[in-house]
Amino acid sequence: MIPARNYRASIVITGSELLDGRVLDTNSNFLAKQCSQLGLTLRGIYTCDDGIDEIKRCLEFAAQGVELVIVSGGLGPTSDDLTRDALAALAGQPLYQDPQVLERLIERYRKRGRTFDPSNARQALFPQTAQILANSVGTAAGFALEFGAPIRTVFISLPGVPRELYAMWSEVVLPLLEQRFGKLTAIPTICFQTFGLPESNVGSRVEGCALPESVKVSYRAAFPEVHVSLSSTAITQTELAQHAQAAMEAVGSEFVFSRQAGQGLAQLLHALLVQRKQTLAVAESCSAGLLASSLAEIAGASEFLVGGTIAYANHVKTKALGVPVQLLEQYGAVSAEVASQMARAAREYHQADFGISITGVAGPGGGTSEKPVGLFYVGIADAAGGLRAVRYFFPNTRSYVRRYAVHCAMDVLRRHLLGLPAPKEAPLSVDTPVLSAARS
Amino acid sequence: MIPARNYRASIVITGSELLDGRVLDTNSNFLAKQCSQLGLTLRGIYTCDDGIDEIKRCLEFAAQGVELVIVSGGLGPTSDDLTRDALAALAGQPLYQDPQVLERLIERYRKRGRTFDPSNARQALFPQTAQILANSVGTAAGFALEFGAPIRTVFISLPGVPRELYAMWSEVVLPLLEQRFGKLTAIPTICFQTFGLPESNVGSRVEGCALPESVKVSYRAAFPEVHVSLSSTAITQTELAQHAQAAMEAVGSEFVFSRQAGQGLAQLLHALLVQRKQTLAVAESCSAGLLASSLAEIAGASEFLVGGTIAYANHVKTKALGVPVQLLEQYGAVSAEVASQMARAAREYHQADFGISITGVAGPGGGTSEKPVGLFYVGIADAAGGLRAVRYFFPNTRSYVRRYAVHCAMDVLRRHLLGLPAPKEAPLSVDTPVLSAARS
Repeated sequence: MIPARNYRASIVITGSELLDGRVLDTNSNFLAKQCSQLGLTLRGIYTCDDGIDEIKRCLEFAAQGVELVIVSGGLGPTSDDLTRDALAALAGQPLYQDPQVLERLIERYRKRGRTFDPSNARQALFPQTAQILANSVGTAAGFALEFGAPIRTVFISLPGVPRELYAMWSEVVLPLLEQRFGKLTAIPTICFQTFGLPESNVGSRVEGCALPESVKVSYRAAFPEVHVSLSSTAITQTELAQHAQAAMEAVGSEFVFSRQAGQGLAQLLHALLVQRKQTLAVAESCSAGLLASSLAEIAGASEFLVGGTIAYANHVKTKALGVPVQLLEQYGAVSAEVASQMARAAREYHQADFGISITGVAGPGGGTSEKPVGLFYVGIADAAGGLRAVRYFFPNTRSYVRRYAVHCAMDVLRRHLLGLPAPKEAPLSVDTPVLSAARS
Repeated sequence: MIPARNYRASIVITGSELLDGRVLDTNSNFLAKQCSQLGLTLRGIYTCDDGIDEIKRCLEFAAQGVELVIVSGGLGPTSDDLTRDALAALAGQPLYQDPQVLERLIERYRKRGRTFDPSNARQALFPQTAQILANSVGTAAGFALEFGAPIRTVFISLPGVPRELYAMWSEVVLPLLEQRFGKLTAIPTICFQTFGLPESNVGSRVEGCALPESVKVSYRAAFPEVHVSLSSTAITQTELAQHAQAAMEAVGSEFVFSRQAGQGLAQLLHALLVQRKQTLAVAESCSAGLLASSLAEIAGASEFLVGGTIAYANHVKTKALGVPVQLLEQYGAVSAEVASQMARAAREYHQADFGISITGVAGPGGGTSEKPVGLFYVGIADAAGGLRAVRYFFPNTRSYVRRYAVHCAMDVLRRHLLGLPAPKEAPLSVDTPVLSAARS
C-alpha cells in the first residue's frame, strides 16, 4: 500500500443556488479541512450547476489524476437532483432501485406522518455496483462507486444538507476511506501567526532562512495578521520543527505571537491573563466595545475580563472615566493624554490589574489635518502605576480602522505581559507611533 | 449585440489556504452574486492550488464555452503568487514590467514609511497585451486579458483580498464589462429582510400569497435574519413591487424590518434615532460590547450612540450601574430585574434617551438548570420612565447566543421606536419570552 499522504482527492459541489450567489457554500470548506487532517492532498474544489451535462463534465475533470472524488449535493427527490444519474452514466451503469432503501424511506415518511410522494422513490436509485452509504439524519442515502482508468477513482456521493454531510462523514465515510486506503495520517505541518509586519516583509524574512525545497511555505493575510505555514512530506516532524523555529526567529518574537493554528491574539491574551490570575478592564471610544467583545468571544473570558466603559461621546469620557474637560479641550479626545487617562480610569474604576484604552478617528468623516482619519492611540495602565500611550496611523475604511485598532490594543498588552518592547513602528501605516512620556 | 443575459461566465479561485480548509472562500459567493445581478450565467466556480500547472489546467477548463473568466487570487508579491505567470503562459505572452505601476508601488511604500522589498516588483509584471486594472485599496493591480478560440474569452484577474476585490469590482470591473459586453442589466429583483421567524415559517407565509409562477422567490438564512428575494423577467417592476408588497404583508410588519438590500437592523436603528434626534446608551453583560460595537460600525453613529458600560463582572454591575448586591443575590445576574436596572442605569448615568441592556448565559459553561446556557434578557428604558425586560431562550454555541442576543436587543428597540408590539415569542427558541412587569 502506498503511503496515505500520496493520495490525491478533489471535491465536486453541485447546486444552482451556489452559482447565483444565494447560498454561501461551506460544505467544501468542511470537506477540505477533513481531507487535510487525513493527509489527502486536495487538487481542487469544483462547483457546478445541477444540469446533468454540467455535472458529468465537472466530475470527469475532477477525477483527473486523483484517487478520490467527494461529491456533495444532488441526491434529493426533485427533478434537479441528478448526481446519481450523472455518476451512473459516467460509469456506464444502469440505475437500479434498492428495495431495502425504498422500504426504509417509506417507513420514515410513515413514522413522521408524512405522505410518501412517488417522486421520493428516486432516492432509492443507485448505480449498479454502488456501495450504499446510510444517512442517519436525512432521507437521502449516499453511495460510493469505483471506476476509471488509468487511475481507478473512488467517487463518494453525499447529500448537500450540511448536517447530513457532517454526520455521514464520521459515520460512514471515514470507515470507508480507511478500508479502501488504509490508515490515513496528516501531512506534517507547522503554522505560526504574526502581527505587525506586512506580508511581503514576513515573506522575505522567511525566505532569508533558505529553507530546503522540500519544505512548502505558504502565507495567508488574515487581516490584520499574517499566518505562515510550513509543511513537508520529505522530512521528519523534528526537522520540520527546526526549520519552523528558524523561520520564526527570522521574523522575530516581537511579531510572532502564536505557534498554534487556532490561537489568535485574543486567545493568547486569555491564556496569559488567566495563567497569571490578572484581570483587565477596557475604555473604548472609536472601537465602541469591539475590544471587549472580541475578548469575550472566547469561552471563560469572565476569568480575566471584568468589563469597561464605552466612552463614545465626550461627556461619557468626562463623567464615567474622569477625563477632565480641560484635557479634552487642550489635547482633543484623540490624543496620548486622553488615551492614558482613559486606560488609568478603566483600571482603577473597574478594579482590574490592567486598563487598556482606544481613542481614534475611525472615519470616514470627522478627520482634520491635525487629527486625520486613521489616527488612533492605545493607552495601557498597570497596577504598578505604569502608564503609556502608543500612537498609530492607519488610514483606511471605518471597519478596518476599528478592527486594526483592536488588534493593536491587544498587541500592546501582549508585549507588556511578555516584556517585549512596545511597538516601535505602526505596522501597515504611513506613520510611526511615538511613546508618550510615562504618566503616573 | 446579443442580450446580456446570454453571456456565460466562470470563476477561478486560487490559493492553497482554501484547499486545506484554513480559509473559507467568500469571494466566489460575492462574484456569483454580482454576475447574477448582471444577468450573466455562471457556469462554474473552480478552486485550485497555487501551483502554476494547476492554475493553468483550471483556467483552461474554466474558459470552455464562456465569454468571461473571473480569477481571484495569486497577485501578491510572494513566490506562491503565480496567476499572472499562468495567464501569460496560456496566452503565449511574455511578462513585462510596467514602469508606471512600479513607480506607484514604490511611491505607495515610501508614503507609508515602509521599505520597498525588491520582491514587491513582481506586482508590476503583466502579460504583454493585458489591460491594467487599478487597485485603489491595496498594492496588487489586476489586469484583463483576451484570448482563445473558438470563443474569445476575457480573463479578468483580481486580488484575493476581499476588500480589494470588492472595491475593484465596482471601480474598474463594472466599467470594463460594460465596455466589452454592452449594458448589462440585472433581472428585476426586490428583496426584504425579516427577523423573528424561522425560515420555514417565512416560506409558508410567502407561499400563502399564491404569487404567479413567473415570480421566482428565494430565501436566504443570514443568521439570525431571513432574507427573501423576488425576481421576474416576465412582469414589470411595478407588478413585481405589488407582489413583494403582498409577500411582506403576509409575513407581517412585526417581522419585516427592511425593504432595502443593504439595510440591516443596525442601519435601521441608526436612521430612526438620527431622524428623531434621540440618543442611546447600552449596558452589556454577556454581549460585552458587541451591541454598541455593531451600532458603531456604521459611519455617523456618534450622532445617537453616547456609549455605555460593559458590566461583565458582577462588581461592575454594582459599582458602575448601581445594581444592588441584594438584587443580584435574590434574582441572579441573568434576570428581568437586573436587566431592567441595567437599562435604566445606562440611560440615566450616560445621559441618553434610551438605555438598552443585555444579560445572559452565553455558555458553554456557567449554565444551571434554572439559568441554562442560552437564557438571556434584554432590558429597555426610555425617557418617559418606561421600563421592560424581555426573556429569551436560545440554546446554541457561545458565538451564536451572543450574536442572537444583540439582534434581539436591536429588535426590542426597533419595535419600541415604531410602536410595534414587544416580541411575544422568542423566535428560533424552545421557549417563549415573557414581559416582566414594568418597573418605574
